[in-house]
Amino acid sequence: MKKIAVLLSGSGVFDGSEIHEAVLTLLSLTHAGAEYQCFAPDIEQLHVVNHLTGEVAVGEQRNVLVEAARIARGEIKATTELEIEQFDGLVIPGGFGAAKNLCNFAITGSECNIAPSVSEFIQAFVDGKKPVGFICIAPVMIPRLYHSGAKGTIGNDSETAHAFNLMGGEHQEASVEDIVVDETNRLVSTPAYMLAENITQAHIGIEKLVKKVLSLAD
Amino acid sequence: MKKIAVLLSGSGVFDGSEIHEAVLTLLSLTHAGAEYQCFAPDIEQLHVVNHLTGEVAVGEQRNVLVEAARIARGEIKATTELEIEQFDGLVIPGGFGAAKNLCNFAITGSECNIAPSVSEFIQAFVDGKKPVGFICIAPVMIPRLYHSGAKGTIGNDSETAHAFNLMGGEHQEASVEDIVVDETNRLVSTPAYMLAENITQAHIGIEKLVKKVLSLAD
Repeated sequence: MKKIAVLLSGSGVFDGSEIHEAVLTLLSLTHAGAEYQCFAPDIEQLHVVNHLTGEVAVGEQRNVLVEAARIARGEIKATTELEIEQFDGLVIPGGFGAAKNLCNFAITGSECNIAPSVSEFIQAFVDGKKPVGFICIAPVMIPRLYHSGAKGTIGNDSETAHAFNLMGGEHQEASVEDIVVDETNRLVSTPAYMLAENITQAHIGIEKLVKKVLSLAD
Repeated sequence: MKKIAVLLSGSGVFDGSEIHEAVLTLLSLTHAGAEYQCFAPDIEQLHVVNHLTGEVAVGEQRNVLVEAARIARGEIKATTELEIEQFDGLVIPGGFGAAKNLCNFAITGSECNIAPSVSEFIQAFVDGKKPVGFICIAPVMIPRLYHSGAKGTIGNDSETAHAFNLMGGEHQEASVEDIVVDETNRLVSTPAYMLAENITQAHIGIEKLVKKVLSLAD
C-alpha cells in the first residue's frame, strides 16, 4: 500500500487550505487504495480571515498546524516530524494558505520565498525523486523547488502564470478537469478552484492528479 | 434542479461540523445534479477545541456561522434567513458541533434541547413534509423534531441508541454503509463517522443518504 503525505496550510480557503480540495485529496487517495498522513508547518498564519464577511479579523491569530488538524480529524504531524523514507509521494492542496502561509506569494508575487520548515519538507520529496502533486495556487512554489523549466499550471490567470515564468518555471494553461505532468521532475499540477465552478469539477482534476502521483510512485 | 439546504454547526469534528462529512454531502449533492445552500445558526460555539491536542482552548470563543463559512467557501446564510419555499429538502452533517451547538445532547443526553434558531429552521422542513437527512450524531435531534416512533440510526453505540429511544425515537442499528429510512416521516439517517474507519466508508453512506433525500423530494 502506497503512503502519501498531504501538506496542509490551515483550514479555510481565504487564510488556509481550501477545505474541499483537501478533503477531495484525502478521498481520492483512500479511494485509490493509498494511505495518507497529513502534515502542516507549526507556524502562525499570516492572518485570520472571517469567511462570512471576507474581512481580516484584526488582532486574531491562529496556528497553521492547529487549524489544519481540523481537516485531518486530529491525525496530523508537524512538517519537522517527516520521516521521508516512509513516504512514496506528496500532495499539496490549494487555498490562499498555500500562498500566505506555506510561502508568501500572495504578498510578494514572483519575489516569493517558501517558509523554511515547508521548503525543507517539500525538498525532501524533490531530492528523493518522489512524485509531488500541486493543486490550485500551490504550484506557484514549483519554480522555487525544481530546476529551471519545471512545468506546472495554475489554470489560465495571466498575471500568476507570468509570475510563474518569471521565477523560472514553464507555465502551461490547463482547464479545470486537466492535469499538467512534468514527467522528468515527477511533478503534477491541476487548477481545481483556480477555475472550478463547483466541487464536482474540482473533484475530477484532483482525482486525476492523485492517480498520476500514485502511478509516478511506482 | 432540486435545491437542498445543508445545515452546518461550525468547522471541525470536535467542536463543529465534521469536515469530511460536510464536504462529502456537498460533493454528493452536486454529483447528483442538485443545488445546495449552506446554513448555520448565528450563535457562539459551546467551546473551541484545539484539534491538535484535543483540549478545550480556554478563553477562546468562535461563532458557529462564521466558522461554518469556511466549509461553505463564504457562501452561507444564517438559519434565520431561510425561505423554506425555495428548498426541496435538508441534510445535516455530523461532528460534535451537531451535539454541542445545534443542540446540547453532548452535555444533557436524553434531556437535550435544540437551539431555538435551529429548531425553527429544521421544523420548517418537517412541517412542510420535506425530506431531511441526518448524518452521524445529528440523528439525536430526530425525537425532538418528529412524532413519537420516528426511526433513525446513530450506528450501534448502545448508550446513544438508548438515549434516542428514551426521547421517544425508535433506534435501528446500521452499519457504516447503510442508511435507515423512515418513509412516513421522509427521514433518512446514516452513521458515517460514528462508525467509519476511513473517508471512503463515510462517502458510501452519505452518498446513499443524499440520493434517498433527493428521491423523497420527488
